[in-house]
Amino acid sequence: MTGSEPGVIVAVDVGGTGFAGGLVDPSGGIVSSRTVAAHRFGRGAGILKNLLELVAGLEDEAQRADLPVRGIGVGVPGAVEETTGRIGPDIQNLPELGNIPLRSVLQERTGLRVAVDNDVNALALAEWTFGQATGLRNVAMVAVGTGVGGGLILNGALVRGAGGYAGEVGHIPVELDGRRCFCGSRGCVKAYASGPDIVAQVRDLLADQPSAVFDSLTGGDQSRIDPPLVFRAADRGDPVAEAVVAKAAQALGAGVAALVNLCNPEMIILGGGVMEAGEILVEPVRRWARFYAFERAVAKTRIVRSGLSKASGVLGAAALFLYEARRRGEVCS
Amino acid sequence: MTGSEPGVIVAVDVGGTGFAGGLVDPSGGIVSSRTVAAHRFGRGAGILKNLLELVAGLEDEAQRADLPVRGIGVGVPGAVEETTGRIGPDIQNLPELGNIPLRSVLQERTGLRVAVDNDVNALALAEWTFGQATGLRNVAMVAVGTGVGGGLILNGALVRGAGGYAGEVGHIPVELDGRRCFCGSRGCVKAYASGPDIVAQVRDLLADQPSAVFDSLTGGDQSRIDPPLVFRAADRGDPVAEAVVAKAAQALGAGVAALVNLCNPEMIILGGGVMEAGEILVEPVRRWARFYAFERAVAKTRIVRSGLSKASGVLGAAALFLYEARRRGEVCS
Repeated sequence: MTGSEPGVIVAVDVGGTGFAGGLVDPSGGIVSSRTVAAHRFGRGAGILKNLLELVAGLEDEAQRADLPVRGIGVGVPGAVEETTGRIGPDIQNLPELGNIPLRSVLQERTGLRVAVDNDVNALALAEWTFGQATGLRNVAMVAVGTGVGGGLILNGALVRGAGGYAGEVGHIPVELDGRRCFCGSRGCVKAYASGPDIVAQVRDLLADQPSAVFDSLTGGDQSRIDPPLVFRAADRGDPVAEAVVAKAAQALGAGVAALVNLCNPEMIILGGGVMEAGEILVEPVRRWARFYAFERAVAKTRIVRSGLSKASGVLGAAALFLYEARRRGEVCS
Repeated sequence: MTGSEPGVIVAVDVGGTGFAGGLVDPSGGIVSSRTVAAHRFGRGAGILKNLLELVAGLEDEAQRADLPVRGIGVGVPGAVEETTGRIGPDIQNLPELGNIPLRSVLQERTGLRVAVDNDVNALALAEWTFGQATGLRNVAMVAVGTGVGGGLILNGALVRGAGGYAGEVGHIPVELDGRRCFCGSRGCVKAYASGPDIVAQVRDLLADQPSAVFDSLTGGDQSRIDPPLVFRAADRGDPVAEAVVAKAAQALGAGVAALVNLCNPEMIILGGGVMEAGEILVEPVRRWARFYAFERAVAKTRIVRSGLSKASGVLGAAALFLYEARRRGEVCS
């Protein structure tokens, strides 16, 4: 239905390291894309100005290509109030965007329909609209990167919750007296499994337990430790890297099991930069998920890696717009 | 709408200790009720026979009172397949009902519309239809008794998941290498907080740590330890009881926080026999929930005790029927 209408969506993925934008057709084809690196933003009001310029540039491009623009979708790294489209106060790495009513700002500026939501909600919708989860009724996305985010589609509808905070898989507590998390709590999945937490745990252990493998991989410069390097060290059998990866997988597996036991989706999709490590992480996550979850519930849940490209953020923003357009069309009269 | 139609619902709550049945009017008034104690069932096919007799008896009663019967709602202590109405293989304490397609059995026997679902899903619907959660969009029920069950209503719809296993709050893992749970996993909320697990933990501790308080409360007979007795001992300052209650509250609080961070409902309702302990348990559960949950998310979630009567199971079965009736009426044409 909406998918067959002509025209493109102006889709923008707002991230801490920059903006990615694109013109996306309703079947998920990326007609054009561009990025703006964060270091070019300046700070303060410059960030919103850059975002508006990116949108205007994509609109111009569509016009030159004679493609009607159906609307705008934007994913942001934080909670968004569903009713107002206002970004929450705690947007990651981009505090300047906090509390901005981005939906109405963009609507007034462009006269177009606009959908704004959390970026991992958008990723879940990308998988559901263009990816492996097409046609399913209950789907969860877990994105492991700088944070551990989640997006939930249940009964065919995105779950936003009372304040737009739903889907925070990364802050499920899996260890009652566990590792401190930046959120103020303890034992969150994120505190073991996010990229920065993996690196921090490795550094803590290396302080007491020198490692020839890490010395060789870093050339003695511990500031060069990043998640891919930790996975390389684990692959070479380094005990520090192995222990940290094992704990990250156990915590992620427990978080995935919580999703299975609480929501029992048909599919859980693992994505994000840290998951690019591949089977060295995915295999134990699956194993722990099966250990912690109800056998009969997890038997109904496929746990897969995202198959979408690096452009999944832009596809998510487009999927978000299509989702909202479809919901408007589906209201019972 | 459906609530204003005349007639009553034959509502049955199937439990391990017996069946409770009632005639319920659409506003939640219990016109009549009766129970069958489990020890009268016999085993095997006798259980289903007793259930059918209870339903037939309630139908007769409605006829004598000249009340049209709109349909039947049944809550059962296990998962139910949404599409078929078949009880799952793992029904608690009543294995004889496992795999029985109860919905079609009752439909064929009575010619009435029948709704069958998990009993804690039914409790969530009772709170949403007749209780404190009326009119909310996102609601979670946590019932702490022999097990720790859950029911989720998100975006105004009951969440059943792929196999009817959604809502298993009791099997969220909150301690990675924690206490063994009967489900085969470790560190489940249930393993710390269910009635039998509270008692088992107390007995384990008493083996090494004699307690004058327990000796006095039990008259030296440890088989008399039950959850209310443990809460009385905690109230008297017994360190064993205090430690077990504290851990149960911490685990429940972490489970509630997982619900808040994953689903961010407007209300979480705590019910079930163990919760009748009152503030000695509810207060620390709330405190831990606030500790483990996102501050902004939990600020949107009211955590309350169930205000429904002992008849909540019967009300839940009726609410289940009304929910299904309303859903049939709400399908978009």
